Amino acid sequence: MRVPELRVMGVDPGLTRCGLGAVEGRPGAPLNLVRVGVVRTPADDEIGARLVAIEAGIEQWLDEVEPDAVAVERVFAQHNLRTVMGTAQASAVAILCASRRGLPVALHTPSEVKAAITGSGTADKQQVGTMVTRLLRLDAMPKPADAADALALAICHVWRGGAQNRLAEAAAKARAASGPRTSAAAYFRGRGGTAGYSRGTST
Amino acid sequence: MRVPELRVMGVDPGLTRCGLGAVEGRPGAPLNLVRVGVVRTPADDEIGARLVAIEAGIEQWLDEVEPDAVAVERVFAQHNLRTVMGTAQASAVAILCASRRGLPVALHTPSEVKAAITGSGTADKQQVGTMVTRLLRLDAMPKPADAADALALAICHVWRGGAQNRLAEAAAKARAASGPRTSAAAYFRGRGGTAGYSRGTST
Repeated sequence: MRVPELRVMGVDPGLTRCGLGAVEGRPGAPLNLVRVGVVRTPADDEIGARLVAIEAGIEQWLDEVEPDAVAVERVFAQHNLRTVMGTAQASAVAILCASRRGLPVALHTPSEVKAAITGSGTADKQQVGTMVTRLLRLDAMPKPADAADALALAICHVWRGGAQNRLAEAAAKARAASGPRTSAAAYFRGRGGTAGYSRGTST
Repeated sequence: MRVPELRVMGVDPGLTRCGLGAVEGRPGAPLNLVRVGVVRTPADDEIGARLVAIEAGIEQWLDEVEPDAVAVERVFAQHNLRTVMGTAQASAVAILCASRRGLPVALHTPSEVKAAITGSGTADKQQVGTMVTRLLRLDAMPKPADAADALALAICHVWRGGAQNRLAEAAAKARAASGPRTSAAAYFRGRGGTAGYSRGTST
Protein backbone atom coordinates (compact mmCIF):
# COMPACT_ATOMS: atom_id res chain seq x y z
CA MET A 1 0.00 0.00 0.00
CA ARG A 2 1.39 3.36 -1.05
CA VAL A 3 0.75 6.57 0.91
CA PRO A 4 -0.33 9.31 -1.51
CA GLU A 5 1.78 12.42 -2.03
CA LEU A 6 0.77 15.42 0.02
CA ARG A 7 1.20 19.01 -1.14
CA VAL A 8 1.61 21.30 1.87
CA MET A 9 1.89 25.08 1.99
CA GLY A 10 3.76 26.48 5.01
CA VAL A 11 3.24 30.00 6.33
CA ASP A 12 5.75 31.78 8.58
CA PRO A 13 3.48 34.68 9.57
CA GLY A 14 4.64 38.29 9.82
CA LEU A 15 3.54 41.75 8.71
CA THR A 16 6.85 42.96 7.27
CA ARG A 17 7.81 39.57 5.79
CA CYS A 18 5.32 36.70 5.59
CA GLY A 19 7.23 33.61 4.45
CA LEU A 20 5.42 31.19 2.12
CA GLY A 21 6.74 27.82 0.97
CA ALA A 22 5.14 24.75 -0.59
CA VAL A 23 6.55 21.21 -0.83
CA GLU A 24 5.23 17.91 -2.06
CA GLY A 25 6.08 14.48 -0.78
CA ARG A 26 5.44 11.62 1.56
CA PRO A 27 7.47 10.11 4.36
CA GLY A 28 10.36 7.92 3.24
CA ALA A 29 10.65 9.46 -0.25
CA PRO A 30 12.54 12.52 -1.49
CA LEU A 31 10.62 15.79 -1.01
CA ASN A 32 10.11 18.23 -3.87
CA LEU A 33 10.03 22.02 -3.76
CA VAL A 34 6.87 23.44 -5.32
CA ARG A 35 7.39 27.15 -4.67
CA VAL A 36 8.96 29.53 -2.19
CA GLY A 37 8.58 33.26 -1.62
CA VAL A 38 7.67 36.11 0.70
CA VAL A 39 4.83 38.62 0.91
CA ARG A 40 6.20 41.95 2.12
CA THR A 41 4.28 44.99 3.37
CA PRO A 42 5.74 48.42 4.18
CA ALA A 43 6.21 49.03 7.92
CA ASP A 44 4.77 52.56 7.63
CA ASP A 45 1.52 51.45 5.98
CA GLU A 46 -1.63 51.28 8.11
CA ILE A 47 -2.36 47.89 9.68
CA GLY A 48 -5.53 47.52 7.58
CA ALA A 49 -3.69 48.01 4.29
CA ARG A 50 -1.02 45.53 5.41
CA LEU A 51 -3.53 42.82 6.30
CA VAL A 52 -5.37 43.34 2.99
CA ALA A 53 -2.06 42.95 1.09
CA ILE A 54 -1.17 39.77 3.01
CA GLU A 55 -4.62 38.34 2.32
CA ALA A 56 -4.23 39.05 -1.41
CA GLY A 57 -0.78 37.41 -1.47
CA ILE A 58 -1.94 34.27 0.33
CA GLU A 59 -5.08 34.00 -1.82
CA GLN A 60 -2.97 34.13 -4.97
CA TRP A 61 -0.70 31.40 -3.63
CA LEU A 62 -3.65 29.18 -2.68
CA ASP A 63 -5.12 29.64 -6.19
CA GLU A 64 -1.86 28.78 -7.92
CA VAL A 65 -0.29 26.20 -5.59
CA GLU A 66 -3.52 24.33 -4.75
CA PRO A 67 -2.20 22.73 -1.54
CA ASP A 68 -3.88 19.76 0.20
CA ALA A 69 -3.18 21.33 3.60
CA VAL A 70 -1.74 24.52 5.13
CA ALA A 71 0.73 24.56 8.04
CA VAL A 72 1.04 27.80 10.03
CA GLU A 73 3.54 28.58 12.76
CA ARG A 74 1.83 28.61 16.17
CA VAL A 75 2.38 32.00 17.78
CA PHE A 76 2.96 32.36 21.51
CA ALA A 77 2.37 35.54 23.45
CA GLN A 78 5.41 35.12 25.66
CA HIS A 79 8.23 35.48 23.11
CA ASN A 80 9.17 38.72 21.40
CA LEU A 81 6.47 41.03 22.75
CA ARG A 82 7.35 43.81 20.33
CA THR A 83 6.36 41.90 17.18
CA VAL A 84 3.98 39.27 18.55
CA MET A 85 0.78 41.23 17.84
CA GLY A 86 1.65 41.64 14.16
CA THR A 87 2.61 37.98 13.94
CA ALA A 88 -0.70 36.94 15.51
CA GLN A 89 -2.64 39.17 13.10
CA ALA A 90 -0.81 37.84 10.02
CA SER A 91 -1.34 34.25 11.21
CA ALA A 92 -5.07 34.97 11.61
CA VAL A 93 -5.25 36.05 7.96
CA ALA A 94 -3.46 32.87 6.80
CA ILE A 95 -5.70 30.60 8.92
CA LEU A 96 -8.80 32.46 7.70
CA CYS A 97 -7.85 32.19 4.00
CA ALA A 98 -7.20 28.43 4.24
CA SER A 99 -10.25 27.66 6.40
CA ARG A 100 -12.58 29.64 4.11
CA ARG A 101 -11.61 27.16 1.36
CA GLY A 102 -12.18 24.17 3.60
CA LEU A 103 -8.45 23.32 3.64
CA PRO A 104 -7.16 21.57 6.78
CA VAL A 105 -4.97 23.94 8.84
CA ALA A 106 -2.27 22.64 11.18
CA LEU A 107 -0.39 24.75 13.71
CA HIS A 108 3.15 23.69 14.58
CA THR A 109 5.37 25.34 17.19
CA PRO A 110 8.85 26.54 16.20
CA SER A 111 10.44 23.83 18.36
CA GLU A 112 8.30 21.10 16.77
CA VAL A 113 9.47 22.26 13.35
CA LYS A 114 13.13 22.47 14.38
CA ALA A 115 12.99 19.02 15.96
CA ALA A 116 11.35 17.53 12.86
CA ILE A 117 13.89 19.05 10.45
CA THR A 118 17.16 18.96 12.42
CA GLY A 119 16.55 16.51 15.27
CA SER A 120 16.89 19.32 17.82
CA GLY A 121 14.13 21.60 19.08
CA THR A 122 16.69 24.31 19.83
CA ALA A 123 18.45 24.40 16.44
CA ASP A 124 19.32 27.86 15.08
CA LYS A 125 18.09 29.42 11.82
CA GLN A 126 21.29 28.49 9.95
CA GLN A 127 20.87 24.82 10.85
CA VAL A 128 17.19 24.80 9.81
CA GLY A 129 18.09 26.53 6.53
CA THR A 130 20.89 24.03 5.85
CA MET A 131 18.56 21.06 6.37
CA VAL A 132 15.79 22.60 4.22
CA THR A 133 18.34 23.10 1.42
CA ARG A 134 19.57 19.52 1.74
CA LEU A 135 16.14 17.88 2.04
CA LEU A 136 14.82 19.69 -1.04
CA ARG A 137 18.13 19.25 -2.97
CA LEU A 138 18.41 22.99 -3.64
CA ASP A 139 21.50 24.75 -5.01
CA ALA A 140 21.36 27.49 -2.38
CA MET A 141 19.62 28.23 0.90
CA PRO A 142 16.26 29.97 0.36
CA LYS A 143 16.39 33.64 1.38
CA PRO A 144 15.17 35.39 3.48
CA ALA A 145 15.03 33.15 6.57
CA ASP A 146 11.22 33.57 6.67
CA ALA A 147 10.98 31.74 3.32
CA ALA A 148 13.20 28.89 4.56
CA ASP A 149 11.13 28.70 7.76
CA ALA A 150 7.92 28.40 5.73
CA LEU A 151 9.44 25.44 3.84
CA ALA A 152 10.53 23.88 7.14
CA LEU A 153 6.93 24.13 8.39
CA ALA A 154 5.64 22.44 5.24
CA ILE A 155 8.24 19.63 5.49
CA CYS A 156 7.42 19.13 9.18
CA HIS A 157 3.76 18.77 8.24
CA VAL A 158 4.39 16.24 5.45
CA TRP A 159 6.34 14.12 7.93
CA ARG A 160 3.82 14.48 10.75
CA GLY A 161 1.00 13.70 8.32
CA GLY A 162 3.11 10.75 7.29
CA ALA A 163 3.31 9.52 10.87
CA GLN A 164 -0.47 9.66 11.00
CA ASN A 165 -0.64 7.80 7.68
CA ARG A 166 1.57 5.05 9.04
CA LEU A 167 -0.68 4.71 12.11
CA ALA A 168 -3.66 4.60 9.78
CA GLU A 169 -1.98 1.88 7.70
CA ALA A 170 -1.27 -0.14 10.81
CA ALA A 171 -4.89 0.23 11.89
CA ALA A 172 -6.12 -0.79 8.44
CA LYS A 173 -3.91 -3.90 8.53
CA ALA A 174 -5.16 -4.76 12.01
CA ARG A 175 -8.72 -4.33 10.82
CA ALA A 176 -8.12 -6.50 7.75
CA ALA A 177 -6.57 -9.22 9.95
CA SER A 178 -9.20 -9.16 12.71
CA GLY A 179 -12.35 -8.56 10.67
CA PRO A 180 -14.29 -5.40 9.92
CA ARG A 181 -14.76 -2.34 12.16
CA THR A 182 -12.30 -2.54 14.99
CA SER A 183 -12.54 0.56 17.10
CA ALA A 184 -8.90 1.45 16.40
CA ALA A 185 -9.55 1.42 12.66
CA ALA A 186 -12.63 3.60 13.08
CA TYR A 187 -10.60 5.98 15.23
CA PHE A 188 -7.84 6.38 12.67
CA ARG A 189 -10.30 6.54 9.78
CA GLY A 190 -12.00 9.39 11.63
CA ARG A 191 -8.70 11.19 12.16
CA GLY A 192 -7.75 10.70 8.53
CA GLY A 193 -11.03 12.23 7.42
CA THR A 194 -10.52 15.27 9.61
CA ALA A 195 -6.98 15.84 8.42
CA GLY A 196 -8.19 15.45 4.84
CA TYR A 197 -5.18 13.62 3.46
CA SER A 198 -4.82 10.30 5.24
CA ARG A 199 -6.19 8.10 2.50
CA GLY A 200 -4.51 4.85 3.41
CA THR A 201 -7.22 3.29 5.56
CA SER A 202 -9.30 1.48 2.93
CA THR A 203 -8.42 -2.19 2.52
CA MET B 1 -21.72 75.45 9.88
CA ARG B 2 -23.06 72.02 10.79
CA VAL B 3 -20.85 68.97 11.23
CA PRO B 4 -22.43 65.99 9.44
CA GLU B 5 -23.62 62.94 11.36
CA LEU B 6 -21.19 60.05 11.54
CA ARG B 7 -22.24 56.40 11.76
CA VAL B 8 -19.54 54.40 13.54
CA MET B 9 -19.35 50.66 14.16
CA GLY B 10 -17.31 49.62 17.21
CA VAL B 11 -15.69 46.19 17.58
CA ASP B 12 -14.59 44.74 20.93
CA PRO B 13 -12.61 41.81 19.52
CA GLY B 14 -12.67 38.30 20.98
CA LEU B 15 -13.03 34.70 19.80
CA THR B 16 -15.66 33.55 22.33
CA ARG B 17 -17.58 36.85 22.31
CA CYS B 18 -16.87 39.57 19.72
CA GLY B 19 -18.87 42.65 20.73
CA LEU B 20 -20.36 44.77 17.93
CA GLY B 21 -22.13 48.09 18.36
CA ALA B 22 -23.07 50.95 16.03
CA VAL B 23 -24.05 54.51 16.91
CA GLU B 24 -24.80 57.63 14.93
CA GLY B 25 -24.20 61.20 15.95
CA ARG B 26 -21.98 64.23 16.12
CA PRO B 27 -20.39 66.08 19.01
CA GLY B 28 -22.75 68.30 20.99
CA ALA B 29 -25.91 66.48 19.92
CA PRO B 30 -27.65 63.42 21.37
CA LEU B 31 -26.22 60.11 20.09
CA ASN B 32 -28.45 57.41 18.66
CA LEU B 33 -28.11 53.64 18.94
CA VAL B 34 -28.13 51.94 15.54
CA ARG B 35 -27.57 48.33 16.60
CA VAL B 36 -25.83 46.26 19.24
CA GLY B 37 -24.95 42.56 19.44
CA VAL B 38 -22.32 39.86 19.81
CA VAL B 39 -20.81 37.24 17.52
CA ARG B 40 -20.11 34.09 19.55
CA THR B 41 -18.01 31.07 18.55
CA PRO B 42 -17.71 27.80 20.50
CA ALA B 43 -14.48 27.53 22.50
CA ASP B 44 -13.96 23.92 21.37
CA ASP B 45 -14.16 24.72 17.64
CA GLU B 46 -10.93 24.89 15.65
CA ILE B 47 -9.37 28.34 15.36
CA GLY B 48 -9.98 28.38 11.58
CA ALA B 49 -13.72 27.72 11.94
CA ARG B 50 -13.94 30.42 14.62
CA LEU B 51 -12.23 33.06 12.48
CA VAL B 52 -14.45 32.17 9.49
CA ALA B 53 -17.56 32.58 11.69
CA ILE B 54 -16.36 35.94 13.02
CA GLU B 55 -15.64 37.14 9.48
CA ALA B 56 -19.15 36.13 8.37
CA GLY B 57 -20.73 37.94 11.35
CA ILE B 58 -18.77 41.15 10.77
CA GLU B 59 -19.43 41.09 7.01
CA GLN B 60 -23.17 40.79 7.65
CA TRP B 61 -23.04 43.75 10.02
CA LEU B 62 -21.07 45.89 7.56
CA ASP B 63 -23.62 45.05 4.83
CA GLU B 64 -26.60 45.94 7.00
CA VAL B 65 -25.27 48.79 9.17
CA GLU B 66 -23.26 50.55 6.42
CA PRO B 67 -20.98 52.49 8.79
CA ASP B 68 -18.85 55.50 7.75
CA ALA B 69 -15.98 54.26 9.91
CA VAL B 70 -15.00 51.29 12.10
CA ALA B 71 -13.39 51.62 15.55
CA VAL B 72 -11.54 48.57 16.91
CA GLU B 73 -10.05 48.15 20.37
CA ARG B 74 -6.26 48.33 20.21
CA VAL B 75 -4.83 45.11 21.66
CA PHE B 76 -1.67 45.10 23.74
CA ALA B 77 0.51 42.06 24.27
CA GLN B 78 1.22 42.87 27.91
CA HIS B 79 -2.26 42.43 29.43
CA ASN B 80 -4.01 39.09 29.87
CA LEU B 81 -1.52 36.78 28.16
CA ARG B 82 -3.93 33.86 28.21
CA THR B 83 -6.49 35.44 25.84
CA VAL B 84 -4.39 38.04 24.02
CA MET B 85 -3.62 35.85 21.00
CA GLY B 86 -7.30 35.17 20.30
CA THR B 87 -8.09 38.85 20.78
CA ALA B 88 -5.35 39.83 18.33
CA GLN B 89 -6.62 37.30 15.77
CA ALA B 90 -10.25 38.46 16.06
CA SER B 91 -9.13 42.10 15.77
CA ALA B 92 -7.18 41.22 12.61
CA VAL B 93 -10.37 39.84 11.04
CA ALA B 94 -12.33 43.01 11.94
CA ILE B 95 -9.61 45.32 10.58
CA LEU B 96 -9.32 43.20 7.41
CA CYS B 97 -13.10 43.22 6.73
CA ALA B 98 -13.35 47.01 7.10
CA SER B 99 -10.16 47.80 5.16
CA ARG B 100 -11.18 45.52 2.27
CA ARG B 101 -14.21 47.81 1.81
CA GLY B 102 -12.10 50.95 1.98
CA LEU B 103 -13.65 52.01 5.30
CA PRO B 104 -11.43 54.08 7.63
CA VAL B 105 -10.32 52.01 10.64
CA ALA B 106 -9.40 53.63 13.96
CA LEU B 107 -7.76 51.83 16.87
CA HIS B 108 -8.51 53.15 20.36
CA THR B 109 -6.96 51.85 23.58
CA PRO B 110 -9.26 50.77 26.44
CA SER B 111 -8.11 53.73 28.55
CA GLU B 112 -8.81 56.21 25.72
CA VAL B 113 -12.33 54.82 25.46
CA LYS B 114 -12.91 54.90 29.23
CA ALA B 115 -11.60 58.46 29.46
CA ALA B 116 -13.82 59.59 26.57
CA ILE B 117 -16.98 58.02 28.02
CA THR B 118 -16.55 58.45 31.78
CA GLY B 119 -13.85 61.09 32.21
CA SER B 120 -11.52 58.52 33.80
CA GLY B 121 -9.09 56.22 31.99
CA THR B 122 -9.33 53.72 34.86
CA ALA B 123 -13.15 53.44 35.07
CA ASP B 124 -14.56 49.93 35.59
CA LYS B 125 -16.92 48.03 33.26
CA GLN B 126 -19.99 48.98 35.33
CA GLN B 127 -19.20 52.68 35.01
CA VAL B 128 -18.63 52.41 31.24
CA GLY B 129 -21.88 50.45 30.87
CA THR B 130 -23.80 53.04 32.90
CA MET B 131 -22.53 55.91 30.76
CA VAL B 132 -23.23 54.05 27.49
CA THR B 133 -26.81 53.44 28.70
CA ARG B 134 -27.24 57.10 29.64
CA LEU B 135 -25.62 58.59 26.53
CA LEU B 136 -27.77 56.45 24.20
CA ARG B 137 -30.92 56.90 26.39
CA LEU B 138 -31.44 53.12 26.66
CA ASP B 139 -33.89 51.43 29.06
CA ALA B 140 -31.28 48.91 30.24
CA MET B 141 -27.53 48.37 30.07
CA PRO B 142 -26.52 46.40 26.93
CA LYS B 143 -25.45 42.83 27.78
CA PRO B 144 -22.94 41.21 27.69
CA ALA B 145 -20.20 43.71 28.64
CA ASP B 146 -18.51 43.09 25.25
CA ALA B 147 -21.55 44.61 23.51
CA ALA B 148 -21.51 47.68 25.79
CA ASP B 149 -17.74 48.04 25.22
CA ALA B 150 -18.27 48.00 21.45
CA LEU B 151 -20.79 50.86 21.80
CA ALA B 152 -18.32 52.76 24.02
CA LEU B 153 -15.68 52.41 21.28
CA ALA B 154 -18.09 53.76 18.68
CA ILE B 155 -19.11 56.71 20.92
CA CYS B 156 -15.44 57.49 21.65
CA HIS B 157 -14.79 57.58 17.91
CA VAL B 158 -17.72 59.91 17.13
CA TRP B 159 -16.43 62.33 19.77
CA ARG B 160 -12.79 62.12 18.70
CA GLY B 161 -13.87 62.70 15.10
CA GLY B 162 -15.90 65.60 16.44
CA ALA B 163 -12.92 67.10 18.24
CA GLN B 164 -11.04 66.98 14.96
CA ASN B 165 -13.98 68.65 13.24
CA ARG B 166 -14.00 71.50 15.76
CA LEU B 167 -10.27 72.06 15.25
CA ALA B 168 -10.87 72.04 11.51
CA GLU B 169 -13.68 74.58 11.90
CA ALA B 170 -11.45 76.83 13.98
CA ALA B 171 -8.72 76.56 11.37
CA ALA B 172 -11.17 77.36 8.58
CA LYS B 173 -12.36 80.45 10.46
CA ALA B 174 -8.77 81.57 11.04
CA ARG B 175 -8.05 81.09 7.35
CA ALA B 176 -11.14 83.08 6.32
CA ALA B 177 -10.08 85.92 8.65
CA SER B 178 -6.38 86.03 7.69
CA GLY B 179 -6.59 85.30 3.95
CA PRO B 180 -6.13 82.06 1.98
CA ARG B 181 -3.84 79.09 2.77
CA THR B 182 -2.58 79.42 6.30
CA SER B 183 -0.47 76.43 7.14
CA ALA B 184 -2.80 75.50 10.04
CA ALA B 185 -5.78 75.26 7.71
CA ALA B 186 -3.83 73.09 5.26
CA TYR B 187 -2.77 70.85 8.16
CA PHE B 188 -6.30 70.31 9.42
CA ARG B 189 -7.69 69.93 5.91
CA GLY B 190 -5.11 67.19 5.37
CA ARG B 191 -6.06 65.45 8.61
CA GLY B 192 -9.76 65.65 7.79
CA GLY B 193 -9.12 63.99 4.44
CA THR B 194 -7.21 61.14 6.05
CA ALA B 195 -9.91 60.47 8.62
CA GLY B 196 -12.48 60.45 5.84
CA TYR B 197 -15.30 62.20 7.69
CA SER B 198 -14.10 65.65 8.76
CA ARG B 199 -15.95 67.67 6.17
CA GLY B 200 -16.09 71.06 7.93
CA THR B 201 -13.01 72.72 6.40
CA SER B 202 -14.55 74.44 3.37
CA THR B 203 -15.49 78.09 3.96
